[in-house]
Order: sequence, then C-alpha cells, then structure tokens
Amino acid sequence: MNGAEQLVHTLLAHQVDMCFTNPGTSEMHFVAALDKIDGMRCVLGLHETVVTGAADGYYRMADRPAATLLHLGPGLANGLANLHNAKKARSGIVNIVGDHAVEHLQLDAPLTSDIHGIAAPMSEWVRTSPSVETIAADGAEAVRQANARPGRIATLVLPANVAWSQASSEAAPAVAAAPLTMRREAPDFKRVVQALRDQPESTLLLLGDRALRASCTDLAGRIAAATGCALRAEFYTARLERGAGRVQVPRLPYAVEPGLAALAGFQRIILVGAKAPVAFFAYPNKPGRLSAPGCEFLTLTTPEDTPQQALQALCEALGAQNVAPTHVVAQDPQSPWTGALTPEGIGRTLAVTLPAQAIVVEEAMTTGRGFDALTARAAPHDWLTSCGGSIGFALPAAVGAALAAPDRRVLALEGDGSGMYTLQSLWTMARENLDITVVIFVNRAYGILRGELAAVGAGTPGLRAQDMLSLRRPDLDWSSLAKGMGVPAQRVDELQALGQALLRSYATPGPTLIEAML
Amino acid sequence: MNGAEQLVHTLLAHQVDMCFTNPGTSEMHFVAALDKIDGMRCVLGLHETVVTGAADGYYRMADRPAATLLHLGPGLANGLANLHNAKKARSGIVNIVGDHAVEHLQLDAPLTSDIHGIAAPMSEWVRTSPSVETIAADGAEAVRQANARPGRIATLVLPANVAWSQASSEAAPAVAAAPLTMRREAPDFKRVVQALRDQPESTLLLLGDRALRASCTDLAGRIAAATGCALRAEFYTARLERGAGRVQVPRLPYAVEPGLAALAGFQRIILVGAKAPVAFFAYPNKPGRLSAPGCEFLTLTTPEDTPQQALQALCEALGAQNVAPTHVVAQDPQSPWTGALTPEGIGRTLAVTLPAQAIVVEEAMTTGRGFDALTARAAPHDWLTSCGGSIGFALPAAVGAALAAPDRRVLALEGDGSGMYTLQSLWTMARENLDITVVIFVNRAYGILRGELAAVGAGTPGLRAQDMLSLRRPDLDWSSLAKGMGVPAQRVDELQALGQALLRSYATPGPTLIEAML
Repeated sequence: MNGAEQLVHTLLAHQVDMCFTNPGTSEMHFVAALDKIDGMRCVLGLHETVVTGAADGYYRMADRPAATLLHLGPGLANGLANLHNAKKARSGIVNIVGDHAVEHLQLDAPLTSDIHGIAAPMSEWVRTSPSVETIAADGAEAVRQANARPGRIATLVLPANVAWSQASSEAAPAVAAAPLTMRREAPDFKRVVQALRDQPESTLLLLGDRALRASCTDLAGRIAAATGCALRAEFYTARLERGAGRVQVPRLPYAVEPGLAALAGFQRIILVGAKAPVAFFAYPNKPGRLSAPGCEFLTLTTPEDTPQQALQALCEALGAQNVAPTHVVAQDPQSPWTGALTPEGIGRTLAVTLPAQAIVVEEAMTTGRGFDALTARAAPHDWLTSCGGSIGFALPAAVGAALAAPDRRVLALEGDGSGMYTLQSLWTMARENLDITVVIFVNRAYGILRGELAAVGAGTPGLRAQDMLSLRRPDLDWSSLAKGMGVPAQRVDELQALGQALLRSYATPGPTLIEAML
Repeated sequence: MNGAEQLVHTLLAHQVDMCFTNPGTSEMHFVAALDKIDGMRCVLGLHETVVTGAADGYYRMADRPAATLLHLGPGLANGLANLHNAKKARSGIVNIVGDHAVEHLQLDAPLTSDIHGIAAPMSEWVRTSPSVETIAADGAEAVRQANARPGRIATLVLPANVAWSQASSEAAPAVAAAPLTMRREAPDFKRVVQALRDQPESTLLLLGDRALRASCTDLAGRIAAATGCALRAEFYTARLERGAGRVQVPRLPYAVEPGLAALAGFQRIILVGAKAPVAFFAYPNKPGRLSAPGCEFLTLTTPEDTPQQALQALCEALGAQNVAPTHVVAQDPQSPWTGALTPEGIGRTLAVTLPAQAIVVEEAMTTGRGFDALTARAAPHDWLTSCGGSIGFALPAAVGAALAAPDRRVLALEGDGSGMYTLQSLWTMARENLDITVVIFVNRAYGILRGELAAVGAGTPGLRAQDMLSLRRPDLDWSSLAKGMGVPAQRVDELQALGQALLRSYATPGPTLIEAML
C-alpha cells in the first residue's frame, strides 16, 4: 500500500468521506488512491476557492470536516481567501496539499514555493509528512485537529514521493487519538447569574458560534422570558437556526452607527460563544468598539465550550427551565408580493416563499442588509453568512451545504460583485445536480463600497473612483454566465416574477439561477 | 496632503502610472486619491488574480512595473497565484495592500489577518508603512525594489490611518534612491570562450530571461553561426521575440523524455540568463535534471546582468560580430488551412494568420505543445508563457500586455481548464476595449493531467479519477461565458472557420473570443 492509499484509508477510517478537489500532477497518486478505494465522495471545483469555500459550508451543516485536495503552493494560495472565512467561522477542514518529491525541491522547479509559509496565515496546524511510515499517523492527527472544538484548519502537505512510496508494512490506519482539548477560559458563571437576576434590563445575552443552534436559542429564550434580558446574535453567523417556531435572536447590524445604537442601552454584555462586538472596519473619528463606553463583559462560554450545557445550567440557576420562551409566530401564508424589486419587497418575498428547513447562504452585501428582520417569521431555516468578510463566500459555501444536507433546499443570496469572485461554483452545482437556488442581486456596482467611500469621509467620487466601484461598461449578464456553466437561469425585474421563480426553483431538483435586476 | 495622496504622487513621480485595482473599504482613501490626482490609469479586475496577472503581463511588455491595489490579507491572497507566476518571471510589481487602521488591528475584526505572512512567500520585499511621515519614502523604495534587475515583487502595506492622516508638511514626493544593484555572480567568461572555440558541437547556448529579446538572440545567432554551437531557450519564457527575420531559438520541451533527448548530446551548457534545466515535476524513477550526466554548466550571465553586453563581448572575443546569423525565412503566404482542428493544423493556421508584432500569450497546455515549432516562421511576434506554472496566467497577462502595448494585437491561447481559473479577465478586456483575441481550446478535460496520471505511473483511471480530470457533465459553453462578460464570441469546429475568425478578430478593434471545439 503506498502513502496516498494509506492516507485515503486513514481519512475514511476517521469519517472524512467528502473530498473537494482541484488536483495537479503532484497529486496524481492521491487521485489514483481515491479512485481505487471506495468510500470517498470526490467533488471537483474549477478554482480552488470553490474547493475551500465548499469545505467551509460542508462543515457548518455536517458538523464534521471535509478534506480538500489542492495543488502545491499556488493551488493552496488560490484557496486561502475562503480558508480565511472558514477559519473565522471556526470550521474544521483537512487540507491535503501535494508537493514536489523531496529530492525535486532542491532543483527549484517553477512550481516550487514555500507551502508552509502560504498555509500558515490561514491554518491552525500545518505539517509536511516526512515519510510513508508516518503518513497514516499524520493524516489521523490532521483529522483530530480539524475535529477540535472549535474546528480548526489543518493543512497536511503530502510530498509526491511520500504518496507514491510503498510502506514497509500493510499497517492498518492509525487509531484516532483522544479528541483534542482546547484551553478553556473559566466562565464568569456566578456573576452572569447575578447580573441576570439583578439588572436584566441593562443586560444583553450575545450569542455566537454554536450558541446559535435552535437547541441553544431555545434555552436563551427561556432566560430572556424569565429575566427580561435582551438577546442578540453576532453580525456574522456561521449557522443561525431561526424562523417560525423558534426563538428570535436578531443579528447585530453591520454598520457602525446602528451597531452603536443597538448596544447603547446595555451596561453589560454576556458573551455566549460570541466576541465583544467591534466595527468591521476602522473609520476616521468613529469608535472601533460598538458597545457603550464602560460596558462590562461577562463570559458564559467561549467557542471552546459546549454552549448548550452552560445555557442549561444558567436556566436552572435562574429557575428558567420551565419558563416558556417566546417563539416566532409563523407569518400568515400569502401570495408573493408584487411591485418593484426593492430590498424590502425582496425580503418579504423571500420570507413568504422560503421552504421549511431551507439553508440560506447570504452574501447580498448591499441589498441584503434588511433581510434579517424581514425574514424573521419565515418557515424554520438556517442562515449562514461569511464570518471572515472575504468576498466570494456564498456560492462555494452553498455547494458544501447542499452536499452536507442533500434533503434540504439551499438558497444562496449573492451580490453581482461578490458573485464574480467565485462564479466557477455554478459549474460544480450543475455537475453534482445540487438543489441550490442562486439569486444574484444585480445593482451593477460594488454598491457597498459607494457607501463605504462616503463612510470613511473620502468625499464625493469622481470619474475614476466611480469607475472602480461600478460593474457597468459592460453590464454583466448573469443568465449567460449561468448558461455557460450548465445552470438554468431566469431574469426577473419585479417581485411577482421573483416569487414565482423562487417557487418554481424550489419545486425543481437541481440548481437554478435567478438574476434579479434591481 | 494625506498619506494616500502622497503615495499616489510618489508612484507617479517614479513613472508608475498604471494601477490594476480591486479595492475595498480599507482602500477607499487611496481610491479617493487616485480619483483626485491626475495621471494614474486605473483598471478594475473583478477578482484579484486578474489584477496581479495583468501586472505581470504589463511588466513583460512595458519593462517597468505597474501598481496593484488589493484589499487586505484575503484580497492579497486571491492574487498570490499570479504573483507566484510573476515572481518566477522576474516581473517587477508594486503591490499596495490596504490594512485596518493600526488601532483597529487589536480588535481582531473579521478581515484581520497576517498580511506580512501572506505576502512573504510571493514577495521579495514587504513593508508596512508606519506613518504618514514615511509613506512617500516607503512608496519610493517599493518602486525601487520593483525596478531592480531582475524585477521584484514589492508589497507595501498601507494602514487605513496612514492613508487618511495629514502629513505635517506638503513635502515633495521622495526623490528616487539609486537603482538597486543586485549581487552578481562572476561569469565564466574565459571558459565560455574556450568551450565555444574548442568544442562547439557539444556545447549549447541556453538563453533565458532578457536574453530572449531579439537584440540578444541576434547576437547569439552570430555566435552560433560563427562557432556551430546550438541555441535553445528555456521552456518557460517571460518574453521571447521570435518569428520571421529573427534568429530561431527553439524552446526546450516540457516533458521529461523529450527534454532529456534534446539535451543528451551536450557536454556543456552555457547559461545566458537561464537556469540549469530541470523537470517541471518529479516522477518515480525519472531524473529531475534534464541535462546529460556529467554535463558541465558555465555561466555567461545571470538574470541580474544585462545579457546584451555579455553577448556582445562574447561575439567580439569569438570574432563573430560580423558573422551573419541565420534568420528565420518568412513562410510563404497561403490561405488558412482546412480540415479538422488538430493541434498541428491549429498551429499552422495560427502561423499563417498571425499579424506582425502580435503578442502571443500562451497557456494551451494540452493543445499547444507543438505550437512552438509550428509558428516559428510566422510574422515577427513576442511569445509569453507562464513562468511559475500556476494555472490561470494567460487571460490576465493578456490584459496587462494589451495595456502596455496598445498598438499591438494580443493573441491569448488558452485551455478550457486553465481559462476557468481567471475567466473574470474577459470583463476587463471588454471594459477597456482591449485588442485581444482569445482562443479557448475546448477539449473538455484537464487533458494534461490525463497524461500526467499515466506519467507518474498511477495506472489507468477509473470513474472517480476520470471525473476529476474531465470538464464534461456539464459542458462548459465559453461563448455564453464570454457573452455574459461583454466579449463577442464565436464557436469554430474546423480550421478554415478558425482562420477566418482569427483574421476577422485581428481586423476588429476590441476583444473577441473564439471557442475552438476540438
């Protein structure tokens, strides 16, 4: 058994059975091993950013890591931006990156690069497997790292000679080591209880990470109902389970001013898997921290913890375990809205048409600002956003989410600017016949940046600046782009057509792209 | 004057007047400065790999660096693969990368990342400008680094607060420092002369880097004519000036076996801006070095040198300065070929239709192997290939080449697999109305990898491996993709139609895409 085969067996033995790939010559023995050994689903992306973004989306829905297969340093580099997003979302991923055979590295062939250096900024763990005798153990350790709580980006470099060499024995795959235990901070449990008892009206329970699953928001809802404290979610949410029948946990707003306003009334914030809220960017003469001056922070759990246990204990300490939380009442069924494609109308149309258990992957930067509130009473669904802010997240993440949850409809809400970073994802959606509805909001601009240019105080844009923020000249034609990659597409320019197109796509297996002309 | 304005003035004062951009919020003051100050041409790419690849192509044709504008760590990361190619091509580039304001970094906002760590593997020089008082000097040093011989990748990180702060004085842009002098190795001049005098028939003059310009190949041709030595170019060529009326310098082949065969007869190789030839990849039981065992290497010049002077001196030492070199005889004019789209037929069709002074950017991995020989007698032209082997080079590089040489036609020869990595380039071609003819060779596969799977001895591919190397299911429709980005396209399936489409595109201003169905 060669090194590549040992590694594939190891991955499978540790329940890593999904591999997003974009291989090259140095990975051909690994490809051959994937071919020979049954059990791994291999999904090709036509750019590495699709590969890594899909692994992020997969982890969020499957709660276990996928593998990626990347071609040397430049292939890894192409996947870094979505690894950044995955790292900030605390998604576990096992990257397998090929490298030249060790003796070839000294020859400085064109594709030679510093793979460790490229991997390090976006990985929590990097190792080059030195020999075929260690590859199984190294593979097991990579999976263990990725499976930690929170998930980690583990990058295993597989030199070609390690992949093709024969091991001295037909050793069984390495046995899994004990789960990785991350350092945990001591929670401020007693002070949290005290604050919620004594000063609930000036206390915010801020939820993030796994605390946004329904099992946890239900407990948080009981605490809020029993004490009168407020509930909020972080702006960026790896996976927020929400909608009718669940507890509403509104996300913090993106922009500085509404963020400050939302937090102005709270003298203390209890962090449940969340971080202290900060502005996405720095702006001249605006604060970076969004909490009120002097706000006290108490930690119930960090992402290293299991929030459900802590929330359960908090419920019990507060006598809230039998207090019914306020559940979102499903909105009245109604026919889709009519009229112009305004952000508000779009939000309402999305809400009334969304199928139960849909997975919404949202990166509609400019158009989607109000979707959080407008879709609050939709059928129960999951809401996934970019956690790292690197553009081009939604389409690849939709691929991974759809593969992790094949019985659920995925709705990817994407801007025309952000969609262009990773449009190759459409081809993978078509190839795998994934149940994904893509809506591209066409405003023909980096619309968010027009606002940001004003927000940083950089003045009124002239021609050159306007040109750098505009997607006009020529107009992108997303229906043609989708057709070019095998995804059926439809252009809509008013709400009724949008609603009908959404309903039709939900009823039709496979991917659809809806080009919403704002 | 704020820091961003100082930096723009500095770039312009040092003849950096082309900026390929994909900005975000943290770069908005730089965008405003580009807007306010006349003189910089700003070209938007819809993915950073277009931005950096265009800067590579620009340098190769302009012999001076362009700037790029990239958004924080992830934006830089998206551009790394083509920075890898640019670095290996020894292209000079000045990357301007925004960062959060310094006081914002400690808040660990989502887009915070290790920009130095991301930049380092693909940059020769990285600096974060610490203050508005140093930004002009830092900008001047970045240009100096990029302008070194050979060119260097210089990455200047511009924190938002440095961009928006006002300098204490309206200082003039920093004066350029003396050109950067790179360490030079002592050439083996006497031994080179001796070898060419005594054993020319077993001696190869191997040209690379700037030695592939016509002024140098002409001198090399005189030496070959006077002594009988052989001439070859490296496989990867940043810019090879060739065609009718010039000296023919065949490129070494890509694959190991023909590479070994080409070099088997040479007991010594004289390096003129070239490196000792090695295999692109390692293969089990195949050598990494392509030269004959015991081959001696003599260095006439390294890429740090000016090869024309050294070749001139060599000519004089050999009495070759007045020996006429053998020039390529232009092929007979003939009508385009007819018949099936075979690689040979395509090469001949390209050769008879190519306009004089065309710039050919070639990344047709599978189809283009024979183009070098088949186009040798075409009208004089430049031939640019990827020097780093990272896929997705040709379309962005064509953008940059066209902007550097607006009076010349650019012909981008691209595979359907490699084209998909950077298809966003088409939009920039349309926006800037660049005279680029793109030919996509559609074989519906990572064709080169099918060969490589066999070459590494990984056996006959089964279904999973075939799937990972196939671009079928669904078929990519490049005409629709081009239409979606505003580039007129035509599909051809035989040689006569290809020839006519090429001639029509050469006669039509602006970009055209030809989808060649193999």
